[in-house]
Amino acid sequence: MAARAGIVVTGTEVLTGRVADRNGPWLAEALRGIGVDVGSVVVVGDRPDDLTAALGFLAGSGVDLVLTTGGLGPTADDLTAAVVGDFQGRPSVLDPELEQRIADVVARLSARRGWHTDPAATAAGTAKQAMVPAGATVVEPVGTAPGLVVPVADGRSGPPVLVLPGPPSELQGMWPAALATDLVRRALAGAAELRQSTLRLWGTPESELAATLRRVDDELAGLEVTTCLRDGELEIVTRYDPDAALAYARLRRAVDEDFGATLYSDGPTLDELVTAALADAGWRVAVGDSCTAGLVTARLTEPAGASAWLLGGVAAYANSAKEQLLDVPAELIAAHGAVSPEVARAMAEGARHRFGADVGIGVTGIAGPGGGTPDKPVGTVHLAVVAPEQVLTRSVVLRGGRDAVRQRTTTLVLHLLRELLLGGPPA
Amino acid sequence: MAARAGIVVTGTEVLTGRVADRNGPWLAEALRGIGVDVGSVVVVGDRPDDLTAALGFLAGSGVDLVLTTGGLGPTADDLTAAVVGDFQGRPSVLDPELEQRIADVVARLSARRGWHTDPAATAAGTAKQAMVPAGATVVEPVGTAPGLVVPVADGRSGPPVLVLPGPPSELQGMWPAALATDLVRRALAGAAELRQSTLRLWGTPESELAATLRRVDDELAGLEVTTCLRDGELEIVTRYDPDAALAYARLRRAVDEDFGATLYSDGPTLDELVTAALADAGWRVAVGDSCTAGLVTARLTEPAGASAWLLGGVAAYANSAKEQLLDVPAELIAAHGAVSPEVARAMAEGARHRFGADVGIGVTGIAGPGGGTPDKPVGTVHLAVVAPEQVLTRSVVLRGGRDAVRQRTTTLVLHLLRELLLGGPPA
Repeated sequence: MAARAGIVVTGTEVLTGRVADRNGPWLAEALRGIGVDVGSVVVVGDRPDDLTAALGFLAGSGVDLVLTTGGLGPTADDLTAAVVGDFQGRPSVLDPELEQRIADVVARLSARRGWHTDPAATAAGTAKQAMVPAGATVVEPVGTAPGLVVPVADGRSGPPVLVLPGPPSELQGMWPAALATDLVRRALAGAAELRQSTLRLWGTPESELAATLRRVDDELAGLEVTTCLRDGELEIVTRYDPDAALAYARLRRAVDEDFGATLYSDGPTLDELVTAALADAGWRVAVGDSCTAGLVTARLTEPAGASAWLLGGVAAYANSAKEQLLDVPAELIAAHGAVSPEVARAMAEGARHRFGADVGIGVTGIAGPGGGTPDKPVGTVHLAVVAPEQVLTRSVVLRGGRDAVRQRTTTLVLHLLRELLLGGPPA
Repeated sequence: MAARAGIVVTGTEVLTGRVADRNGPWLAEALRGIGVDVGSVVVVGDRPDDLTAALGFLAGSGVDLVLTTGGLGPTADDLTAAVVGDFQGRPSVLDPELEQRIADVVARLSARRGWHTDPAATAAGTAKQAMVPAGATVVEPVGTAPGLVVPVADGRSGPPVLVLPGPPSELQGMWPAALATDLVRRALAGAAELRQSTLRLWGTPESELAATLRRVDDELAGLEVTTCLRDGELEIVTRYDPDAALAYARLRRAVDEDFGATLYSDGPTLDELVTAALADAGWRVAVGDSCTAGLVTARLTEPAGASAWLLGGVAAYANSAKEQLLDVPAELIAAHGAVSPEVARAMAEGARHRFGADVGIGVTGIAGPGGGTPDKPVGTVHLAVVAPEQVLTRSVVLRGGRDAVRQRTTTLVLHLLRELLLGGPPA
């Protein structure tokens, strides 16, 4: 792989975590898809000095292209275009035709949203967004902010900088046009195909996998193998040139030999597997959940077309709701407690019956931080999946805080559905 | 503010977006809280060269401390400790006592999870995790990975590097102990208080705020003001030394004068305001949602203690579920369609009645990408909140993809609750 790129993500709101960055990872993957390697992403706040330092670091690291995201809005803390222009030795000038096009977009947006805007304020913001470093190529705005490709000043050496807006929809919307500019195409001309393959295991400790990888290490030349353990799921991602396909086949075989019993996917995510299998089976699902309070239903409806396999769910936080909306007998709750295998199963059956579904899911547990007892500590979770000819149940004590317990419980439900629909490693 | 720090987040899974980084923002905020400024966070994959380059960039930028997260696991791609040791001129050596302590933790964890592990594989992983750069201070592990404080080799100059594990619970768990080490305390001795204040507006365009900020700009010396627009919500975050408190008061007054009608918070988040107000009112809420399918209920139950204000919810994806679980008359759906103000209100009333709640929330809409019509395009959403003596409704057409429409709808529900409970800018 010949072409390399580096990414600067700007925004104090990203640096401090008020907004999670989606652009750095998206760009890294989009670039990998066209054979461009990304070694690092630098996140900086809205300070000219920090942005300049990040540009200097990446431009000096030998990459073919530097990309920036964010900092193109109308407010004074949006300063990326001007800083990049200065860094490349190209001071900014007003582009009056671009200014007019942005003004048209702003007028249309304001009308649609019913905003009554101050004309002078709007004009000042628009003029700021139409300042373009001399000699830069403009990428037409998808929202109000144009993208820019800024070459280094004549007589100096260094990679061009592709300046992209922060809102993901705007950035992704202008990506094809940005790639098609002469400057970007020339910069990335050396790109070559890079493959990526993923294996997913459920229930294998990371140290066992490490032993296998060490054993076959001298057969894996040309592979970049990374492993990631998350909520009991172990992900092995391998990147390699097409030349190393044979080495990848050897890795794949070694993993299959040692961990065939826990290897549940050689690509698709858990959610993709489960929703495809539900669609294939023609089964319709209903959820009765308590500690996850809607998270299971929300996750099953993330993919488009979810109405084909999901009828709905009852988040029964209160015991009265478990009784009245999921037909859990009050005596059952009194005898075993709301957090019990018996109540999880009754919730699954209640949801199945109430919604007229093929499959009912029941979830009850203690997400914490309060509510735990010595017998039923925080993290105690009982799950049940009731299908036409099969019932699967699981009882676990999960570690972690409230949010982690809720998320892990949701993942465990998906694994129970996978086991029910596809077999493979037990959830 | 005298002390500065830089952060390196390692992990190919973070660089490529398979895992969202939580450590960089957490550390940036934890450091700000003790008066240490963070200018940039560099994300690198599991490659020694990229990690070394990132360490060089930050150490060379004049910071007092460099922090790294991740790459301390038992697999071969976990190489942070060795790379940092080399970078600081301190080759790693096995710490046999640490090795024993890690082995004890691993044995305990394996027993608890019921894993049957291969002793040789486990021993190799443990030995790897017990390799410590010569002269480094060990921070006791919370999981299996120890933290390290690695000073630069004698006779060379540069900041110490604090090496922290990747799992957020382990990193956060050892943070106090890491701060208490002599090396870190000396490095950050120059830290001084930095204040941070947040104002939140609902319904003001960013360009209007920019005009106000430009108008008062020469009164704001000493303030670092950043603004962020998200789903119609505008956030103004200001950082300042205590000396600049008067300038902040001027900014606060200017925003209040120009945008008093949309300024709904001078600190707490929307969720914090709403859940506190629900607790104050003693009202209990039930949800009947369709296009958000559980997201509203899940969001209202994120805070601990949610059972005090939330009874539950019905995610009624299918029309039959709207009829049978929320008592929406079939004729109403036939007459107006499932996505209509009338059905939203009926769902709110049905949820209120079925759960015996004080407040019922009804949500129906078209999240897309399919299902839109010329009359009811994708993004059409109808909301209703029915309270003891008040009914609020809202009908909007939201932009964006399926995920964005679901998230924005959920935020809009929270704003309706805020308006109901606290008054202020209309949702």
